[in-house]
Amino acid sequence: MQTYEHPQSRALFERALKVVPSGIYGHLGPSEGCYIPVSAYPFYAARAHGAYVWDVDGNRYIDYMCAYGPNILGYGDPDVDAAARAQIATGNCTTLPTATMVELAELLVDTVDGADWAFFAKNGGDTTSLAMMIARAATGRDKAILFRGHYHGVAPWTQQYGSPGITDHDVANNLYCTWGDLDALRRTMEAHRGQIAVLMATPYHHPVFADNELPEPSWWSTVRELCTEHGIVLAVDDVRAGFRLDMRGSSAHYGLRADLQCFCKALANGWNVSALVGDDALRAAAGSVMYTGSYWLSSVPFAAAIACLEKLTRIDAPGRMRQTGRILTDGLRAAAAEHGFDLRISGEPAMWFMRIADDDTMMLHQEWIAECVRRGVFFTSHHNLFMNTAITEEDIAYTLDVAHESFAVVRARHPERQEIQTVGKG
Amino acid sequence: MQTYEHPQSRALFERALKVVPSGIYGHLGPSEGCYIPVSAYPFYAARAHGAYVWDVDGNRYIDYMCAYGPNILGYGDPDVDAAARAQIATGNCTTLPTATMVELAELLVDTVDGADWAFFAKNGGDTTSLAMMIARAATGRDKAILFRGHYHGVAPWTQQYGSPGITDHDVANNLYCTWGDLDALRRTMEAHRGQIAVLMATPYHHPVFADNELPEPSWWSTVRELCTEHGIVLAVDDVRAGFRLDMRGSSAHYGLRADLQCFCKALANGWNVSALVGDDALRAAAGSVMYTGSYWLSSVPFAAAIACLEKLTRIDAPGRMRQTGRILTDGLRAAAAEHGFDLRISGEPAMWFMRIADDDTMMLHQEWIAECVRRGVFFTSHHNLFMNTAITEEDIAYTLDVAHESFAVVRARHPERQEIQTVGKG
Repeated sequence: MQTYEHPQSRALFERALKVVPSGIYGHLGPSEGCYIPVSAYPFYAARAHGAYVWDVDGNRYIDYMCAYGPNILGYGDPDVDAAARAQIATGNCTTLPTATMVELAELLVDTVDGADWAFFAKNGGDTTSLAMMIARAATGRDKAILFRGHYHGVAPWTQQYGSPGITDHDVANNLYCTWGDLDALRRTMEAHRGQIAVLMATPYHHPVFADNELPEPSWWSTVRELCTEHGIVLAVDDVRAGFRLDMRGSSAHYGLRADLQCFCKALANGWNVSALVGDDALRAAAGSVMYTGSYWLSSVPFAAAIACLEKLTRIDAPGRMRQTGRILTDGLRAAAAEHGFDLRISGEPAMWFMRIADDDTMMLHQEWIAECVRRGVFFTSHHNLFMNTAITEEDIAYTLDVAHESFAVVRARHPERQEIQTVGKG
Repeated sequence: MQTYEHPQSRALFERALKVVPSGIYGHLGPSEGCYIPVSAYPFYAARAHGAYVWDVDGNRYIDYMCAYGPNILGYGDPDVDAAARAQIATGNCTTLPTATMVELAELLVDTVDGADWAFFAKNGGDTTSLAMMIARAATGRDKAILFRGHYHGVAPWTQQYGSPGITDHDVANNLYCTWGDLDALRRTMEAHRGQIAVLMATPYHHPVFADNELPEPSWWSTVRELCTEHGIVLAVDDVRAGFRLDMRGSSAHYGLRADLQCFCKALANGWNVSALVGDDALRAAAGSVMYTGSYWLSSVPFAAAIACLEKLTRIDAPGRMRQTGRILTDGLRAAAAEHGFDLRISGEPAMWFMRIADDDTMMLHQEWIAECVRRGVFFTSHHNLFMNTAITEEDIAYTLDVAHESFAVVRARHPERQEIQTVGKG
């Protein structure tokens, strides 16, 4: 297979360095290191369609990052984009909302288990911060339980103590527990009885750099009981997994009735909207909080979200992605084994995490990821990956061919028993 | 003149009450009170074009709220929307950004005085929060000076102590000063020497419910000197005024060289993007902060912003809006005087604030606003208003006719010297 080069990406990156801090941002960064194998990566896209993205050098990739989640029906889905285009002609960001806001709220209430109302914003983090505020307004308490390794956006309260720009006050109300440890959770609730407003968690644990963990059978039923007993609002951050596992929401998928649920990424196939949905008991508190934004009533994303949710339900998108995700992850595991690697796959098939477990530094894994990217399969090495419904059997077959060849390249570089070396700068 | 009724708005509001907390949100709310004369207001828009919005009952309004700022070239501006539509066909929210991100950053650096780099997000509040974090990362200090009556978004740190959902820790680093009081500012800086990371202010003071205040001639030069002397980052929140006063940014308009400047509303004529721009000295700190979002690299808003900024410059939008804003505000003041009212107009003509000063409760003012809205001129009673470049001389003439008739109606209800009564529920 031919491997890709990225001269145009590099040239654009040099231009960007002059006018954008670090030249690019988000999960991509210019420094080789723990995140991604930068030397193998394109930095800028030229266009995207269906399951594919083309970089500015004309290389095509099957994109398993899916814009970090929003791409669920394929880039430029004709049904979603037709709804968006029709709404553009009528109005987008207006002083008053249009009926699309009410219709989307009705659709979410009909679709998501435990949703009696919906509140719309823009970022996933807008909804996690709003959930914290509503829980505090409702309980009159301040503290929050979070799970170590969590990602709930970038607001200061979500960040680590000591990170650049974060103050002690920002994280002073956070209590950190370990996912799956019910005894520690009980002790924390006892130690702060009457002080904890909210427990926030993802429906399953999907930290970066670490194997993802599905809930044990007793996890959610026990957490629900404990929260109810202690009067703690149970908020589920379904921003990443939402509508990839279950149209009823990932909470219902695991048998949980959450008090608040945050959605964003898969809501409108890339059109910019997020939603907090909640239980009737929190409706008044939700109405009491001061929360608004310049574009939050925009109708184009609402129209796109309605079209997206209707199509996801119509084609049983979660079922499809579970199936294609299983075929792909089974194939990847088998390919690794053929070359003598232990590819550990965790999480859900529609949003799996993987790592070559023969090397705890993940640098061997990163080396393999780099070879896949060079051959047109866009993976990243530290984050869960995403399925979308535009990925075909041919795409999966091609992905497995690339995986095979990439494992072979890495194996040739690292014969068994030879010490594994950190990949150098490319 | 015929006055409007809103049966469809009310019906839709009843539907919304079932699925949206308070039925609607943002600056509109269902309860009659200090905010707006609810009985006179439509709640939902059907469509928008140019300077006009039509509500779901088919009533047309000249919309001086401009979606609270984003509408600067007229709703559905053909040039901006053509750029957006072209970009939709290529790709919007993708794993990698497109060249549009770099091009928009270059354009902002070329356009805005004091912009050496740009960082993009979604909400205006994303950029004010990022400015706080960058200032803290750069200085290693925690405290922030804000001005009483400020609005910098809805993040917890921007809100008032004691508001629903806000904890003591959220606002613990804030020091509050009064706009225009240099002595108090000096004392605050002295009292917290070496502890203040940032001073954040709007380019001129535009609180709600109160006369807006332009900077006194020595204000910004002295504030700039004090910040430099104390090593405090000077951040200007130009989210509301940006590009309505000056294409170089409102800071430059008042002769100020700010360290960080926040833009959002007028950036893309309603397409969803915000930008923080900054001085070279803060580039490394900006790159160090963990800050990202699901839709922040989306290309459609970037393409729209490029088209919007280019058109704003080409047609000298700030100059036009200053001129039309002056004609309108002069006319409104004169109309008030004819009916024996003292209409006090403050702020900038392109983004003026007004109130009938004969009544400190603003309820008489609200009564007049209600009559204007009932006749197709969309004002609100507590917030600054906005000009856009689609407003014609005919629109202004019509607005002044409505203002006259509305003053006459209010005067008939409140003959001079009669005690002014609070407007009742409609």
